[in-house]
Parts: sequence; C-alpha cells; structure tokens
Amino acid sequence: MIELIVPQWIAPVEPDATVLEEHAIAIDDGRIVDLGPAAAVRARHPQARPTELPGHLLIPGLVNLHGHAAMALMRGMADDLPLERWLRERIWPLEARLMGPDLVFDGTVLACAEMVTGGITCFNDMYFFPEETARAAQALGMRASLGIIVIDFASAYGSGPDDYLAKGLALRDAMRDEPLISFCLAPHAPYSVGSDALSKVARLSAELSMPVHTHLQETAAEVDDCLRLFGKRPLARLAELGLLGPELIAAHSVHVDEQDLQLMARHGVSVAHCPHSNLKLASGIAPTARMRALGINVGIGTDGAASNNRLDLIGEARTASLLAKGASGDATAWSAHETLRAMTIAGASALGLADRIGSITIGKRADLVAIDLGAQELIPVHDPVSHFVYACGREHVAEVWIDGRHVVRKRQLLEAGALRTAAEVVARTGLWQNRLGKIVPGD
Amino acid sequence: MIELIVPQWIAPVEPDATVLEEHAIAIDDGRIVDLGPAAAVRARHPQARPTELPGHLLIPGLVNLHGHAAMALMRGMADDLPLERWLRERIWPLEARLMGPDLVFDGTVLACAEMVTGGITCFNDMYFFPEETARAAQALGMRASLGIIVIDFASAYGSGPDDYLAKGLALRDAMRDEPLISFCLAPHAPYSVGSDALSKVARLSAELSMPVHTHLQETAAEVDDCLRLFGKRPLARLAELGLLGPELIAAHSVHVDEQDLQLMARHGVSVAHCPHSNLKLASGIAPTARMRALGINVGIGTDGAASNNRLDLIGEARTASLLAKGASGDATAWSAHETLRAMTIAGASALGLADRIGSITIGKRADLVAIDLGAQELIPVHDPVSHFVYACGREHVAEVWIDGRHVVRKRQLLEAGALRTAAEVVARTGLWQNRLGKIVPGD
Repeated sequence: MIELIVPQWIAPVEPDATVLEEHAIAIDDGRIVDLGPAAAVRARHPQARPTELPGHLLIPGLVNLHGHAAMALMRGMADDLPLERWLRERIWPLEARLMGPDLVFDGTVLACAEMVTGGITCFNDMYFFPEETARAAQALGMRASLGIIVIDFASAYGSGPDDYLAKGLALRDAMRDEPLISFCLAPHAPYSVGSDALSKVARLSAELSMPVHTHLQETAAEVDDCLRLFGKRPLARLAELGLLGPELIAAHSVHVDEQDLQLMARHGVSVAHCPHSNLKLASGIAPTARMRALGINVGIGTDGAASNNRLDLIGEARTASLLAKGASGDATAWSAHETLRAMTIAGASALGLADRIGSITIGKRADLVAIDLGAQELIPVHDPVSHFVYACGREHVAEVWIDGRHVVRKRQLLEAGALRTAAEVVARTGLWQNRLGKIVPGD
Repeated sequence: MIELIVPQWIAPVEPDATVLEEHAIAIDDGRIVDLGPAAAVRARHPQARPTELPGHLLIPGLVNLHGHAAMALMRGMADDLPLERWLRERIWPLEARLMGPDLVFDGTVLACAEMVTGGITCFNDMYFFPEETARAAQALGMRASLGIIVIDFASAYGSGPDDYLAKGLALRDAMRDEPLISFCLAPHAPYSVGSDALSKVARLSAELSMPVHTHLQETAAEVDDCLRLFGKRPLARLAELGLLGPELIAAHSVHVDEQDLQLMARHGVSVAHCPHSNLKLASGIAPTARMRALGINVGIGTDGAASNNRLDLIGEARTASLLAKGASGDATAWSAHETLRAMTIAGASALGLADRIGSITIGKRADLVAIDLGAQELIPVHDPVSHFVYACGREHVAEVWIDGRHVVRKRQLLEAGALRTAAEVVARTGLWQNRLGKIVPGD
C-alpha cells in the first residue's frame, strides 16, 4: 500500500537550502518513491492513503552521531565534575558493579523512547553488550549503528581487545540481514586502546569497509598525555596507525589546533560534535565554524545521558549553531540550513549510510520527521527552517517514520510492541534506581 | 478557600540547595501560608482542597530578567546577523514601519502564552507602548516589570527622552494599585541615550526607588565606541552619571573586564545574562563563572524572540550553566542549585521583588511551577534538581500558579479569559505575517 505524506513544507536537505511548499511524497515498501507538487503526487497515486499535515514541516530523520544509549539509567548521577573525575570516580565504578545485558537493554530502551519521540531515527552507539543495544533498537523500531567496542580493560562483556573484537564481529555476522542495523569499529579512545589493537582496527576497517568510531582529543589533558607518552598528538598517532580517512568518526574533537584541522580535512575525517557534553564536563568548545570553513563533515551527537543529560538532538544542534556563531564571532556561521544538514546528511555520510538516509530523496529509505509549526509559540512562520533550528524544541516533533514505518503519531509511540517494551522497562526503573543509588557516590 | 499543593519534591530555593520530599504548602488569598511535612500540613488545613502531584517537583515561578516580549511577532525575521546589522538593517526599519499599540499587544500576548506555559511567572520587559505590554500580561495573568523606556530617537510611541519619561511615569501612576505590575526605568543603552537623559534617570531612580534596566556592554564595538567618544568604558560612564548601584540591572554584560567586574561587585549591580541571544548575534560569552565568584547577582533573560528565538527560560538557564562550565574550564561552576537560584531569586532580587517572590517561603506570594519528573525520558530520578536543570525542558512544565491563581493546568492555559485573548491573537497572526513579510529584507 502506497502512503502519501502531505505536509505544508518539506526541507529535503538535498538539494541544499531548499524549502518546498505544498509538495508531497509517496512511500512504498519503506522507500520514497515520489516527490513533487502535492496535486501532482496525489494524481499519480490515486489509491494511496494520504497523511495530511497542514502547518507541519517535513524533514529527514535526525541522526545522533555519538552516544552511549544505555547510560540513560545513570542520568543525573555524576554532575558538576570534569571528564577525568566523572569517568574514574563515578562512571567506571558504577559500570564495574552493574554492567550486564539487563542494564544495557533497559537503559537503551529508555534512551530509544526518548530519542525517537524527539525525532532521532538513527543513532550511532558505543557501549558494552551491543547485542542488547540492537535488541532495544529493534523493539523501538529504530535504525542503529552499533559500535564494536575495543578497550584495553576487561569488563563483564569481554576480557580485552581481541575478545571484544571477536564478539563484535560475530554479532555483525549474525545480524547481517537486519535492515536497520549497521556496525562501526569502536575503539574507545586513543588513551584507552593500545597501538596493536588500533592497528588491528585499521586493518579490519579496510578489509570490511567499516567506519571507525572513537573519542578523540576531547580534553586538553588527553592531548598533553599523548604528547608525553608518544611524542605526538592523538590525531598524528592515529595517522601513523593508518586510521585517518573518510571512515573515521572523531567524537568531540574539542582540542584540535589548525594542524589537526588541516589533517582532518585532508583525510576526509568526520567529526561528531557534542557541545552539551563538552560544556558540561568543562572540556571546552570545539572550533566548529573553522571545521566547516575547511569543509570537514560535522555531525551532531548527544553523547550519553550521564554527561549531557538530555538525548535531544534538536536542542543539541541549536546549541551547536549558536555556539559556532558566539565562539567564532561570526554570526553567519552555521546558518539554519547548514545546521539542519549537520543533524541529517552529515551524520548519514559519516556512517556510510548517505545512499539510504539523510535526505528526502526519491530512492532513499523513508526516515522522516514532521515538526508541528502551528504551535502558539511558533506563529507566525516567516521561515520554517529558521523556526525548526532556532525556535523549535523536541516538543514540536509530531510524527516520525523509520524505514517507512510510522513509529510516532501525535508525539506518542505508535506501535504496540514498542509501547509494551517501553512500559515493561519503565516498570523496572525503580529497581535500577535502588541498585544504582546504593553505589554512588565514590563507593 | 485554602488550597494545598502536595508534590513529591519541593525545591524552595531559600534555604539554598534544599530539597524537601513529601512536603506540602498551603495557599490562602494568593499567599503561601504554610509549608511542612505533607501529613502535618494536611492535618492543619482539613478543609483545604489539595492538588496532588506525585512525581512532580515544585519550584518558585521563573523570572525572565530581560526581554522585549512584543518582538515575538518578528521571530525568525533576522537570523544569522551580528547585533549592529540586526538592529540597523532589520529590527529598527521594521519597527519604524509597524510600531503601534496593536503590534505591542498582539506580540506580547503571544510571548506571554509561550512564557507562562514554559514556567515563567514574571518577566522584565523593555519596549514601546508599555501600557499594551501591561494589558497583555494582565490578560494572561502574569506578573510583569515594565520598562519606562528612554531612547534618543523618536518613535510612534514618543518624541524623545522627556516624552518617554513623562508617558512612562504617568502609566506608573495610573497602575500603582495593580498588584502584578511593577516598573523599571529603562534607558535603552548608553550608546542610544545621552548623558542628560541618563542623569535624569539616575535622579528619578533615587527619588522613586525604582530599578534601572539597561543594555550594557553587549558587544566589543559598544565598548570601543564609548572609549572613543567619552574616553571611558560604558560602566565607568554610568558610574560617573550616578547609575551604579543595587538598583541597576545590566542586561548582557558580555564584554566586561576584571575592572568592570570589580566595579559591578562593589556597587551591587545585577546582571541579566542572555546567553542564547549573545551567542546568536555573535556578541560573545559573558564571564558568568567569574561574576558568581565575585558575588555578583546574575539572573537569566531570554531577550526578545527576534534574537533568541525562543522564550524558554529553562533552556536558557541550562545553556547558562553549561556555558559557565565550558567557558571557564571549571565543571563545578553554576551547579544545578545555583542555576535554579539564577532563574528565580536572583531575578526577583534584581527587580526589588525578593520580599514577594523568588522562593517558596511562608509569607511570599504564591508564584509556583510544578515540573513533571515522571516522564519516560526523566526516570529514574536520582536528584530532582539536577533533572530539572540538566535534563528537563519547558515540555515538562505541568502546572503554574501566579499570585495564587492556577493559570496553567496539564500544560494548557486554564483561565477562560486568557484562552480567549490568546485565541483572538492567534487568529490575527496571519495578518501580521503579511504586514511584516512585505517589509523584510532591507526594504
């Protein structure tokens, strides 16, 4: 059955900086099969069932390019701390005590419910037990890019780099026919993964054509430590290990100097910019106006809820745009349309998924979000994309489709299975609160 | 009739950093008359009607310390421009063509509907035709501090400083018995008001015990121009004119050096910090961690919707907290409790209203907001104030009381008069869109 969506405006992202008024799209079997003036699309598909959305702006589904979804259970447990203490005094001790498939599944279900009702249709994750992340994403109907985590220390999930890689690659094989699931190699960070394991990741990435997702140059201390231990900056070390290229997604990239930026631009590295987390942990402000001026592909990530504390890509991108202007002194940096690209096609490109998602284009999968611009606090609408980026919040996300399935209707999860899973997890959060609450602080 | 409010948590703000669980308050004739453990309060007021709010956090009403509410009609008409061009090329030409009581009333009604449903119970405004601002605030049941604007150029509202002062003071006299309305003297900025008029404002402020609300050191250019014209920085010039003191509310204060900050601290000047507007116009980042370290009273303002573009004090304060940490490199700056103070008691103090509002204290007026922390994206709740500041959005504002009147219930305007006025204005926004749209850009 062909479905039509007839919003007031469409911002297709490709071509760039375009707003179509009184246009419609047609979806068949999860794919966008038509796009044109509403009357013509209706005429070409007379049997189709239309979803009429007056006052709504239709945009591509949002791509959350960096996060740790399961940490939703730890939201608000580690505030007002810098990254190093946040990790060593709070997060790692909590994880050491409670890490397991149940924590990852339940935390990720909560995160997915928050993300999808906020317009995020695809998320790029890095955490232990990625099979549970996958199970949670599937239960909520979301597209997910799972990290094959690599880290030098043991956890409940694995004993070390070789074990993590073996488990992750086996999962990837097992899930190769899942249409909404893809994988990245995910070495945690240059400071937590040794050179042998990083070289192995580089070889696997080349052999298997997989993106590599890592934390990079998030703090000044990380850069200083690397200089002391290796005589070079983390990016230069990754370059030497064969890891710089268009497959690399460098999360954070706060402390990057002009030489780093030139290196990233030359190699086509993508950045996952996480402004709220960087500010909250006092890591600093990434030079994103300069990144875009050099043509670096910059997507947006929420990071995990323990350091953000909100998995809201719309709010995150608004801050990204405002911060790019305020920190660079250039009010034209990160315009509304450029910010919309960062939330959609930039993330899709970084994940190697730009042929399938990231824009409203005939032939791509139907990952779509309808924003209600008819709300009292948004009228009059002089420019729908300005309103979306600068004035809307996730509270204006009305409808969401993923791979053609209508998963959010009138701000609520729509599918019975998703609702049931979310309700089951909500019922268990009291138990998690007790288990987590007994450990913190500094136990 | 006494009303009880029985939330799960209360953050009274005074005493500082306190969270009360299973407590309740009683309201009588608009005033908070009791606060204590829920069972005891219920027992003391057996006839009272209780509002039960399990899963909710009760906080004082939020104070928006700087804005231009009427500009809600111009939201999204002047993006991606620095302040100087934003004013001269867009805002002032628009205002010159369309300024009038109808624009101010309709714009302010839209702004009030947005603000009050987002938990703002009191706003400090600066604009032309303040009698219309007052009328709109009263229609929506809001507390308002109106600026007696002073600016060197003529407008549809007045011919110059003396005329503006005369009209504003007459309005103040006429409204002296309105319990929710108060006034500030509001010289627009040192660069747009001459020294004679500023001196007159200083005299009036002393004679009438009125706060003075002005834009101050918002951009580097403003400071440079003042140095060139007057041989001193704007703050030093205001000091010379007798305007520095606890009655001064300095909006923005982005470009303040250590000497400026010492001067502000010594004189007890308050700052209205507007981070989104400062970032969006590329004005810069105010040194708010340093301000607080010096004991300067810092409240939060949204500024107008033409430069923000969102009248959301919760989002604004979250950015204020994150930016204070990220820009200072100190993750402990602007903790959750300190940020809650900035949104409430700091604004009330700056406006001279701390004896009436700004905290949940027996004897104060009942300006209250209940935040729904039971939402799926907020559980588990390890710390309700952390969740409010770092994870909530205005979408979690459930109930609002102003001066004891229940004005927002389950996220919707409650009173028939407010709903009718809002609906009438909404019906006229199409006309405003046409009128405004014909003028921009650069006509």
